Amino acid sequence: MAHPEIYLKKNEDKRLRKGHLWVFSNEVDTKRSPLEQFNAGDLVQVKSDDGKALGTAYINPQALICARLLSRKPNLKCGANFFKERLTTALALREKLFDKPYYRLVFGESDGLPGLVIDRFGPVLSVQITTAGIEQLKESLFAALHELLSPEAIILKNDNGQRQLEGLSLESELAYGKLPDPLIIEENGAKFKIDILEGQKTGWFYDHRNSRARLAGIAKNQRVLDLFSYTGAWGIPAAIGGASEVTCVDASEGALTLALENAKLNQVQDKMHFVRNDVFEFLKQARLDNRLYDIIVLDPPALIKRKKDFKQGYEAYRRLNHLALQVLSKNGILVSASCSHHLSRENLHEILRSSGRHIDRHLVFFAGGGQGPDHPIDPAAPETEYLKTFFCSVASSL
Amino acid sequence: MAHPEIYLKKNEDKRLRKGHLWVFSNEVDTKRSPLEQFNAGDLVQVKSDDGKALGTAYINPQALICARLLSRKPNLKCGANFFKERLTTALALREKLFDKPYYRLVFGESDGLPGLVIDRFGPVLSVQITTAGIEQLKESLFAALHELLSPEAIILKNDNGQRQLEGLSLESELAYGKLPDPLIIEENGAKFKIDILEGQKTGWFYDHRNSRARLAGIAKNQRVLDLFSYTGAWGIPAAIGGASEVTCVDASEGALTLALENAKLNQVQDKMHFVRNDVFEFLKQARLDNRLYDIIVLDPPALIKRKKDFKQGYEAYRRLNHLALQVLSKNGILVSASCSHHLSRENLHEILRSSGRHIDRHLVFFAGGGQGPDHPIDPAAPETEYLKTFFCSVASSL
Repeated sequence: MAHPEIYLKKNEDKRLRKGHLWVFSNEVDTKRSPLEQFNAGDLVQVKSDDGKALGTAYINPQALICARLLSRKPNLKCGANFFKERLTTALALREKLFDKPYYRLVFGESDGLPGLVIDRFGPVLSVQITTAGIEQLKESLFAALHELLSPEAIILKNDNGQRQLEGLSLESELAYGKLPDPLIIEENGAKFKIDILEGQKTGWFYDHRNSRARLAGIAKNQRVLDLFSYTGAWGIPAAIGGASEVTCVDASEGALTLALENAKLNQVQDKMHFVRNDVFEFLKQARLDNRLYDIIVLDPPALIKRKKDFKQGYEAYRRLNHLALQVLSKNGILVSASCSHHLSRENLHEILRSSGRHIDRHLVFFAGGGQGPDHPIDPAAPETEYLKTFFCSVASSL
Repeated sequence: MAHPEIYLKKNEDKRLRKGHLWVFSNEVDTKRSPLEQFNAGDLVQVKSDDGKALGTAYINPQALICARLLSRKPNLKCGANFFKERLTTALALREKLFDKPYYRLVFGESDGLPGLVIDRFGPVLSVQITTAGIEQLKESLFAALHELLSPEAIILKNDNGQRQLEGLSLESELAYGKLPDPLIIEENGAKFKIDILEGQKTGWFYDHRNSRARLAGIAKNQRVLDLFSYTGAWGIPAAIGGASEVTCVDASEGALTLALENAKLNQVQDKMHFVRNDVFEFLKQARLDNRLYDIIVLDPPALIKRKKDFKQGYEAYRRLNHLALQVLSKNGILVSASCSHHLSRENLHEILRSSGRHIDRHLVFFAGGGQGPDHPIDPAAPETEYLKTFFCSVASSL
């Protein structure tokens, strides 16, 4: 059976031809193919204005991104076999990269599955569905997951705000099986207990894995400050790597309680300190007290969530980096990250350059990068690249 | 004693104030401070048009970049102590990063020493001086190197074309001590014999260290093709990492002979093949023969040396990447690099995106980056960032 068709306006097939998977509603020729005829999540064939088939997509007439391509084949039946094929390819890459089942298994568009994120926590899968299209196909997805991975539990982490734009509900639930208690994952050889249902996003951020390994490799005998520490994902590997002391600062009591548990799990609690405070306040006080740190990790939550918050968010990033540099020891190291899509790599680069100059120190980047290899970047979809990290060595002025 | 002054024209102090170290000849107020009065390599004070001191630089009235700042302090005496201070800072960073003395110790502007590159090969230092300013200060530099590092030998690798622009001679020589024979270095646990006097650049390219470690980590049971292999710096770690076979292709008989010696040194010669051929020809033949590889490393020498060669060089990169993708197996991995400063990261990104689309395969970047941590990047001097590497996973079409 053929899917119903949507036709794009003239030249609006360019993005798809270049490799992207999105169709914006103003690109659809709505006279020829009115969007109102579709229900959110329907499968459609996308066609260019001259009738060339561009592939199979799911549609949401209410959303700004009104269709996302699932395949370049027209009239694809997106059943369990479709998901099995996509998941097998995604798995092949992860199994080349990691020898234990702790990673992001599916990263949306980059794995050919727009609207879907799956993190693998050993026997537990944490699934985040952000579009009506994937929501419709959930049963096929689950069938494929069961067949390929035989998980003990599947969690639907559906508390992502993006679901509201798609007209979807916002609750997280245990969709299958039983959660191990405690649920413990491994990253770079360190163990972490995670609170999958209450935690942020899918329950854990695998995306900084490589940068955290790098931090652990240079932490020996260093006094480390872990700002916005959350549950200790940076601070604990630094302590395991031989840091002389690690101070974790976070505003959330719950996050710090879990961080302490994780420190104990890795037997590094003796050299770790946990401070519940606002990070700005903490840094201002440290500066007053002339306290210095050898390595500072500054990995705030997204401070620019929407484009219109750019100016205010940029200023927050600038102030944070500026303050952190002021409590960094001679030849100290600042690890500065941003996960805001709206703060570009160039923006953070410029914040670090100008902050270094402002306090008259010679700041260079000796490493950088971003999201780990289980968060691949689709070069045709710039939105898949979001994480920026700079390792800065900060010497005296030249 | 105060250094003679050069005055910049109005507003031409901006680049220096932002953190860069270069002064271009057209930025100097030559009426007020004629350049002809100076000899190549003289130390000067740089002043803004309103007389503010910007620092101490060396000058070369014949060069387009006529002065490079050595310090933001005016009237600095650039003797052995100056070099000792700069080298100590550079060493502090490297000693945090590496536990063996094999690394780039000084990377020009990024280490506050424009015109100077030093690679450390265990007891041997390979020194590349590219400006008249550093040439003048050579004795102080050497005194500092002896005091800090007690090297067994110092090689001056002065075959860099940039020296011609500075009016300097082009010969390499053993400047001090005696070279160990053979000279063997280590990178990521692999051993390599290097030919420091006859080899390219300083004799070894440490800059891909991290990417080579990454390659070794994913090479297990893979058929690896190492294009422009030179002396085996990629292929050998891949073989050590467990590749089922490694084919090294290079046009230079001498490079391949050394690559074979290095394979033997690491006891992986049994699974390595060495093919002397032009890389384009090799790839075309492989395509005709339907030979496929699981991992292909494409790390050509700089194909764009001068800005005016951009178009031709871009086309060469495009053809090479295109050809390589055509002999890559399903879910294969292409490691594509460029060390041409004139080919931007965005250029290589676009070449890979469009090549993937052209052969209708889904290409994503799962890792990237560039020069290793001993080649730090000065955010105020974009010229210090030159190496681009993309690890691409290449699946079937969506």
